[in-house]
Order: sequence, then C-alpha cells, then structure tokens
Amino acid sequence: MSAGLPLLGVLRPVAGVRLAVTAAGIRYPGRDDVTLIELATGSNTAAVFTRNRFCAAPVTVAREHLQLGQPRALLINTGNANAGTGNQGLRDARQSCTVLARRLGCQEHQVLPFSTGVIGEPLPMDRFIAALDSLPARLHPDRWVDCARAIMTTDTEPKGVSRSLQLEGQRVTFTAIAKGSGMIRPDMATMLCFIATDLAMDKAMLNRLLRVATDASFNRITVDGDTSTNDACVMTATGVVPAPVLCGVDDPRYPVVENTLTSLLVELATLLIRDAEGASKFVTVQVSGAARPEDAREVAYCVAHSPLVKTAMAASDPNWGRILAAVGRAQAEQIEPDKISITINGLRIATAGCVDVTYSEARAQEALASQDITVSIDLGVGTGAFQVWTSDLTTEYVVINAGYRS
Amino acid sequence: MSAGLPLLGVLRPVAGVRLAVTAAGIRYPGRDDVTLIELATGSNTAAVFTRNRFCAAPVTVAREHLQLGQPRALLINTGNANAGTGNQGLRDARQSCTVLARRLGCQEHQVLPFSTGVIGEPLPMDRFIAALDSLPARLHPDRWVDCARAIMTTDTEPKGVSRSLQLEGQRVTFTAIAKGSGMIRPDMATMLCFIATDLAMDKAMLNRLLRVATDASFNRITVDGDTSTNDACVMTATGVVPAPVLCGVDDPRYPVVENTLTSLLVELATLLIRDAEGASKFVTVQVSGAARPEDAREVAYCVAHSPLVKTAMAASDPNWGRILAAVGRAQAEQIEPDKISITINGLRIATAGCVDVTYSEARAQEALASQDITVSIDLGVGTGAFQVWTSDLTTEYVVINAGYRS
Repeated sequence: MSAGLPLLGVLRPVAGVRLAVTAAGIRYPGRDDVTLIELATGSNTAAVFTRNRFCAAPVTVAREHLQLGQPRALLINTGNANAGTGNQGLRDARQSCTVLARRLGCQEHQVLPFSTGVIGEPLPMDRFIAALDSLPARLHPDRWVDCARAIMTTDTEPKGVSRSLQLEGQRVTFTAIAKGSGMIRPDMATMLCFIATDLAMDKAMLNRLLRVATDASFNRITVDGDTSTNDACVMTATGVVPAPVLCGVDDPRYPVVENTLTSLLVELATLLIRDAEGASKFVTVQVSGAARPEDAREVAYCVAHSPLVKTAMAASDPNWGRILAAVGRAQAEQIEPDKISITINGLRIATAGCVDVTYSEARAQEALASQDITVSIDLGVGTGAFQVWTSDLTTEYVVINAGYRS
Repeated sequence: MSAGLPLLGVLRPVAGVRLAVTAAGIRYPGRDDVTLIELATGSNTAAVFTRNRFCAAPVTVAREHLQLGQPRALLINTGNANAGTGNQGLRDARQSCTVLARRLGCQEHQVLPFSTGVIGEPLPMDRFIAALDSLPARLHPDRWVDCARAIMTTDTEPKGVSRSLQLEGQRVTFTAIAKGSGMIRPDMATMLCFIATDLAMDKAMLNRLLRVATDASFNRITVDGDTSTNDACVMTATGVVPAPVLCGVDDPRYPVVENTLTSLLVELATLLIRDAEGASKFVTVQVSGAARPEDAREVAYCVAHSPLVKTAMAASDPNWGRILAAVGRAQAEQIEPDKISITINGLRIATAGCVDVTYSEARAQEALASQDITVSIDLGVGTGAFQVWTSDLTTEYVVINAGYRS
C-alpha cells in the first residue's frame, strides 16, 4: 500500500561517483543488501545524523571518520541496523571500513559506514566481510537505481530523484536516493539519503546547503513520531565539472543551487511519506496565523501525530473535532479557540472555532476522499506559519510493525 | 477486545446520593444516554477538568457553576460531546441545567453538566430536554451500575469500584464510576469519573484528596496521547455518616482515606487501560534510576507513546531495540546509553545499553506472551522514578477509530 507513490524515474550518473551492490545475505538470502558508493579523489562530503542518543555504531563511526578527512567511499548495509550492539557493534563497523579500505586502496577513515534494519542484533560479520570482496569490481557510474533498491527496508518502491541544470554554461547534475518508511519524525536527518553532485563546493558551502535543504524537507515529515537510531543524510560534491568552486552565498549561482537542492530533497521527503508504512493518504498540515513560528510548528506536529486525526484521515471521515482537539492540546503559547478556522482541500470546515455555517458533511466527505489531503489551520492571532507532511494511520501500519521481525 | 478487563462488581450505594438514567436518543435510539446523579443538601463537591484549550461547553459551564456554590445534581449525556459548538453549545449546556434545576427545585448553578461523545455537532436539545422530565421520578440510591453503563461511549464494559471501611467505628463507603477508552493521555482529569463518599469533608480537603489521587492514577495512563475536550473527574462528600468532618491532614483518619481513594482511582484508571480501544495487552512502563523525576516521566511517556513499541507489544515481539530507540529520543536531561538496563516481566533483556549476555529470544517471547507486561527501564544515573500504564496498538484500534462516527 502507498499513497500515490510514483515509480522511480531515470537517475542520471554524477561524474566522479561509481556505485555497486551485492547480496551478502545479512538478513534475507538472495537480496542485494550491501551498497558501495565510491567518491572521486577531491570530492567534498557533508552529513547530518540522527539526534537519537542511542545512535547506532555506524553513526558514531561515520561521525568520527568524517572529522578525520574527506571520504572516498560510503558503505551501506540493510537488514541489520548495528544499533544497541555496544562495543562489539563499534568494532564491527570499524572492521567493515578497514576491510573495504584495503580493497579500495584508501585509508580506513575514508570509508563511512551506514546500516539500517533491525536494532539490537549483531552484524553477521562473516557474510558481510566476504561480500565486500566482490564490490570494487562491480563499480559503475550508472548503478543509482540498483542502489536505491538495495538500501530499502520496508519501503515498497525504490526512491530517487535527479535534476540537471545549466549553470553559467555548464551542465550540472544532482542525483539522490533515499530510503525509509517508518520510525520517521522531524529533527533528524531522517532515514538514509545519499546525494551527489558534480559541481565543486567547499565543505562550509556543502554543510550550509545540506542544512538549509534538510530543514525544508526531511525535517518536516513525520510518519509515527518515532526517531531512528541510524538516520543519516549525506551529500557529496565531486567537483568534476570544470566550473569554479561554489564557496559563498554571494556567488550568483548560489540561489539556483539552493533551490534545486531544496526542491530535490522536498520531492524525496514527500516520496518517503507517500510510501510511509501502511499509508493510504498523503496529508499536508499547514498552520498559519500563529503568534510565533514555534507555535505553528508545535500545532502542526500535534495534528500530524494525533492517532485520532490519522485514523479519521484513513477513513476519509471529516471528523474535524479531532483536529480541534489536537490543536487544543498543543503546547503553544497562544491559542484562542474562537479565532481558529480550518479548511480541508480548500473547503471551509470550521470558522471561529465552530463548524462553519456552510458546512456540509457530504461535501466534506468528498474532499477527504482524495488521496492527497491538505488540512489548513489558521490560528488567527499572528503571522507564524509551518507546514508538515504526514501519512494516515491504517490497520496496515499495525500489521507491518507487528510483523516486522518475523 | 480488552486486556483482562474484569466484569463490573458490586457498586454499593452511598448515603446521600440517588441516581437515574434514561434513553433520550441523543445518538442511538433505545440506549440509556442521560444520567442524573442527585447529591443531598450539605454535600461538598470538587472537580478537576481537562486542560485542552478547546474545552467543551459543559466543561466551561460546570467550572462556572462550581464557583457559585455547592452542586445538587450532576447531569451527564453520552453520544454528543457538545464541544466545538461555540456560543450555541454554551446556551445548550446552560439550558439543560436550567430545565433540570426547575424539575429538582434547585438553582441552575447547582447543576453541573457533562457531555461525552462526538465533537463538533450541536446537541439535539428537543430530545435531550424532553428526556429530563422523567429523570427525577426514577431517582434511586442503588442505580450505580445503570449509570456506569449509561456513561459509556466506546467502552466495552461498564467500569466502577466500591470500597467500604471502618473509620473509628463508623462504616464509610466510597463508590466511583468512570468511562473512557480512547483520546486518553496524562495531565488531564482523564475522561469522566464520578466519585461519592458518605464521609463528611470540607471543600479544601476534597480538593486536596482529589488532586493527590488523580495524580497517582488518571494522570499516569495513556492510550493514544490524544487529550479530550471533555475530561472531568468529580468527587462528592455527602457527609451523611454521623462522624466528624475530615478537614485536615493531621486528622488521624487522613492517611487511610487518602490510601483508600488513591487505590480506588488507580483501580479505575487501570480498568480504563484494560478496556483501551483495541487493547490486547496491559502494559506497565516503569522507569527508575533517572537523574530527575521529570526525566523518568519523560522517558516513561516516550516509551508508552511509541507506536513502534506498542505494535511490538501487540505482536508479543521482544523487539527491545524499539524500546531503546524510544528512550533515546526522550527530551530528558541526562540519558547515558551505556548505563541503561531493561527487564520485561522480570526477565533481563538489556544491560549497559546492549542486549544482555543471558538473553534468549525464546524466553523473551514467552515473557511477552503474557497479557500483562511490565517493562522496567533503569537509567542508571540517579534515583528519579515514574510509572505509567498503557495499552498496545492493534489493528482493532485503527478499525474502531476509523469507524467511530459511522
């Protein structure tokens, strides 16, 4: 089940990046579950990671390695998160980097490890390490689609997006893949995402762009309010395109690069929501008229996390009282019930905290029958605004999560 | 579906309290949906209400009336929450009090109104008011069971508890009924609860006891993190027993009264959880070893609200990594992953943030197969502790809430 998830389109190669996948049998036999992304010498890489204090061993190691120099390889496994695995987990993550570095002829700290899957079980190191042997020979610039598929866990379809643009006469490409459909909530780099561009950028520029773009995209989605121990979003600029390095916001190319990257990550983020576990609806919660932006954010997440709102969405039930109740419990500084109005897909539902005089149950049900639903809440007390994307809560979500390990 | 919910036992009459129910057809025809609880002259009453800013009209009116004097009657309807109904809702709630006061020969402000049911629809006042006519003639001291049934919404069974005790030679009785199985979370007077005792207490004593007992009971349960617009917990002391008024904590009877009331409300609160929407498990989350009590509370609710923990419980799946992940995202001041240990029904699962060396999947599954599950989390950094009761998340929860209005 998914809510209007499009099939994966063309993913264009990015000069300076080669990719490979293989099946190590980490959890299931015969499924590609190990991915290698090789980055050309001279690439710059930035990353944002989960803020969960139980971050997985590979997150700890990737953070450390990123401090020590520029990565030459990203190594990703699915089927096992290598989280809650203590010192053994750290040793395992480091060993996988050491072995791969030897195969690639780089240093251990130039490999960043990423894992996703079940928490709390040790990595099957024999099978994992054995699988690394075959990876270098398989490297090819046009393997983004295979990688998008190999990093999936409960995703129903692979997710990736490419954008090419002319930048002062040079063709520049951005390609990104992402995975994740549960244990998703904001304030994280949310799940795994790997982005590459052939444009040259310095590290400060990369960090800035990645933060701006993730704030507007992955940090505005939520499926279940749960946060992963393994989330990471990594961006590499190979700099292979013969154009000047993008190194400041004053560069005339900056605005178009920022817009391109942001729109790319927003598209990926909404794909994650369309493929959220059990999702049958794609729900946008827009809050405006708040006294403060933080209030708008708090109200938007209260509504987006409410199981009662989410089940009503699943049923296409215009039970707007549940929306009001969720707004009413938000820890926002200023909420005045009699100033609030609500529309659903443009249809006025509530005005001044009461059902609107034009309200018709039949028309409201019709509005909610859409696969894409936009709930707009005007708090009527200021100019603060925020928007989040979320999914509905279906029996399918429960079935998936009550059966994930079996 | 419920998680070990016992059938309703005997509910003893409380001298000074008479009760009546009738079927007004507010939402469904032929179902008792209006309840009257008449309180003897000289009774003292205290109440705690929802903190949702969208409190329902009857909550506003009940608060106002309680300020104006001692109530003589509690009027409760189900089927319609009279919430999100604006000024019309306030007028309707007041009118129901006025009409009933006339029938009972008391003043309007001596009637407290309570409503529960669907939010955002106007009360069908014709049917509601017409039903009030027959209520006074039906009043009887031994109608607690009928009332427990008539205040139900999605509850599968009525809920009530009685305790009698000898207090310095006098037999004193406490009887209470409650309803609620969804839209339940802490920091509220959580759902509807009506308590009566024949012991005499002054109003300050009543307020104190009610706060102490609700803090230890209704404020420690959560089903879905959603909070109601209509929650209220009301306690009346009729003072009909010929014993001195309980008016201070120095009174030698105070400790036993506080213990009795607290244990009664804890029993009722856990009954609400056992009958939580779709519940198949009764889950106790105990957190200890926190640096601060607030940290323990935050961690306990993070775990209790996690959809991934709740679905794992539903599946009897010892997916303890989800518990660690929920602890890791808690906004607590001090969390040290490598100091945390977890037991489930006494079985050691994790030690120092890792799977315990004695861990066996088979034994963990066996522990989780119980209907009652206690998850104990020791944060290992201090002495702060907190405990909450919650339910699992099943497909049944989604089915109930996606179909509630139809």
